[in-house]
Amino acid sequence: MCALSSNYFSLIHSISEKIESFGLESVVSDAKISMKKHVTIKNASDISLLIEHTLLRPEATTCDIKRLCCEAIQYKFHGVCVPPVYVEEANRNLKDTDCAVVTVVGFPFGTNLTVTKVEEARQVKLCGATEIDMVMRIGALKEGNYHAVYDDIRSVVEVDTSVPVKVIIENGLLDRAEKIAACLLAVKAGAAFVKTSTGFQTTGATAEDVALMRAVVGDRIQIKAAGGIRNFRMAYALINAGANRLGCSSSLSIVTEK
Amino acid sequence: MCALSSNYFSLIHSISEKIESFGLESVVSDAKISMKKHVTIKNASDISLLIEHTLLRPEATTCDIKRLCCEAIQYKFHGVCVPPVYVEEANRNLKDTDCAVVTVVGFPFGTNLTVTKVEEARQVKLCGATEIDMVMRIGALKEGNYHAVYDDIRSVVEVDTSVPVKVIIENGLLDRAEKIAACLLAVKAGAAFVKTSTGFQTTGATAEDVALMRAVVGDRIQIKAAGGIRNFRMAYALINAGANRLGCSSSLSIVTEK
Repeated sequence: MCALSSNYFSLIHSISEKIESFGLESVVSDAKISMKKHVTIKNASDISLLIEHTLLRPEATTCDIKRLCCEAIQYKFHGVCVPPVYVEEANRNLKDTDCAVVTVVGFPFGTNLTVTKVEEARQVKLCGATEIDMVMRIGALKEGNYHAVYDDIRSVVEVDTSVPVKVIIENGLLDRAEKIAACLLAVKAGAAFVKTSTGFQTTGATAEDVALMRAVVGDRIQIKAAGGIRNFRMAYALINAGANRLGCSSSLSIVTEK
Repeated sequence: MCALSSNYFSLIHSISEKIESFGLESVVSDAKISMKKHVTIKNASDISLLIEHTLLRPEATTCDIKRLCCEAIQYKFHGVCVPPVYVEEANRNLKDTDCAVVTVVGFPFGTNLTVTKVEEARQVKLCGATEIDMVMRIGALKEGNYHAVYDDIRSVVEVDTSVPVKVIIENGLLDRAEKIAACLLAVKAGAAFVKTSTGFQTTGATAEDVALMRAVVGDRIQIKAAGGIRNFRMAYALINAGANRLGCSSSLSIVTEK
C-alpha cells in the first residue's frame, strides 16, 4: 500500500467538510457488487477474477466483441467492458456464464446532459448491461458546482439501484483536491465504485491515485483502476494500492505473463 | 483544389453501386443551411464567417464557454461548437446575435445506441442547439453494416429536419473505401454536412481527405473540416480543397495572423 503523507488526510478532511456544507444527502445504493471470492494475488492468473476485459475503441466491430467475450470466458475474467452499441452482442455471447456485461455511459467525456445519461443507462440496462461505468461532469467539479456533479451521478444511480454504477473521475484531468472531492461526491451519490480513468486521456491509472482514492472512500465503496495497465507488475501494484477491480485491454498479456 | 487520380473516381463509382444495391432510400433534409454570403478568402479575417469556434474538451467550465461566446461575437465567427451540457449557457450568451450554437451528439466515439443519440439530439434541440454534429457508427461501417450506419444517421436527422446535421466520419480511423462509403451514406440519410474528424483522434483534417469527400458528395451536401487546424495556411488549404465550414479551437490565432 502506498504511504500517504499526513497533510493528505487534513486535505481530505477539509474537502469533506466543504462538501457536507453543501447539504448533499447521502444515498445508499442497493447495488449488489459481485466481489466473487477474495483473491490472494500470487501470480498472474490470480488476477483474472478482478479483470474487466475491455474494448471501447470507436472502431471496434462485432467480430472484435465476439473474440473479447470468448477470451473472457476462457480466462475466467470478471466480465467484459464494451460500448453501449455492443451490449446486446456481449450479452448473447456470455449467456449462461457468470461473466458480467459492463458498459459505459456518457463516455468518454461526461459532457452529456444528465437526462441523456439517464436515458442511456436505461437503454443499456434493457440491452442486458449488469454494471455501468459513467463519466462524471468534470467541468462542473472544476468550477466547484458540487450539486451538479452529485445530481448527475445520483440520477444515473437511481435508474436501477440494483445495477452497480462506477463513477469515472478521470484523475489525469484533476488536481489532488478535485480527486478528493470527486470521490466524496461519488460516495454520497450512491455509486458502487470510483474509477480512476477512461483510458482515453494521456494519464491512466497510477498506484498513487488509487491509494489516495482508497484513503478518501475507505471501505464504503470500491475502486476500479483502468487506463494503461499493461503488465502483471502494474496490475499488482494497483491492487496493492487498494484497487478491487481492473479495467484492461491488455488482459491476456497480464494473465499469461511468466 | 487537390487533384484526385482517376482511379479514385472508379472506386467512388463502385462503392456507390454497392450502396445502391442495399436499397437504402434517399432522404432529402429540409435543413436550412446557413451559408451566409459567399466569402472570397484573401486574408485571415475573411475566414471568420466559416469558423465554428470550438471547445469540446471534457474539463471545459462555464467560464470557458462564456469566453468562447464573447470571442465568437467579437470575431464574427459563424458560431460556437460546445458540449451538450453547455448549449443552454451558449444560447444565453449568444442571444440576439446570429451566431450559431452547434453541439455534438454521440461524441466523440459514436458507439452509443441510436435511441440514445436520438434522445440526445432532442434534448440539445430543446436547449437551443441550432446545428448538430453527430459521430457515425464507425465499427458498423467497418464491418459493412451499411443499414446500421444509415439508420443511425437518418434517425438523428429525423428528430428535426430543420436542424442541419453534420456527420463526423472520423477519417483518421478509415481507409479510402470506408471514407467514400461513409460520405455516400451521409448523403443518402439526409445529412447537411459530412465532417472530417472529431479532433480527438491522432489524425485531424487533411486537404486530401476534404478533396476526396468533395469528389464523393459533389454539391449535394457541405463539408466541415475539423481537427488540428492551427493556422491560416492550413485553413486556407482546407477551404481550397472544398471545405465550407471549419471547426477550430485555434480560431483566434487563425484570424489574427499577420
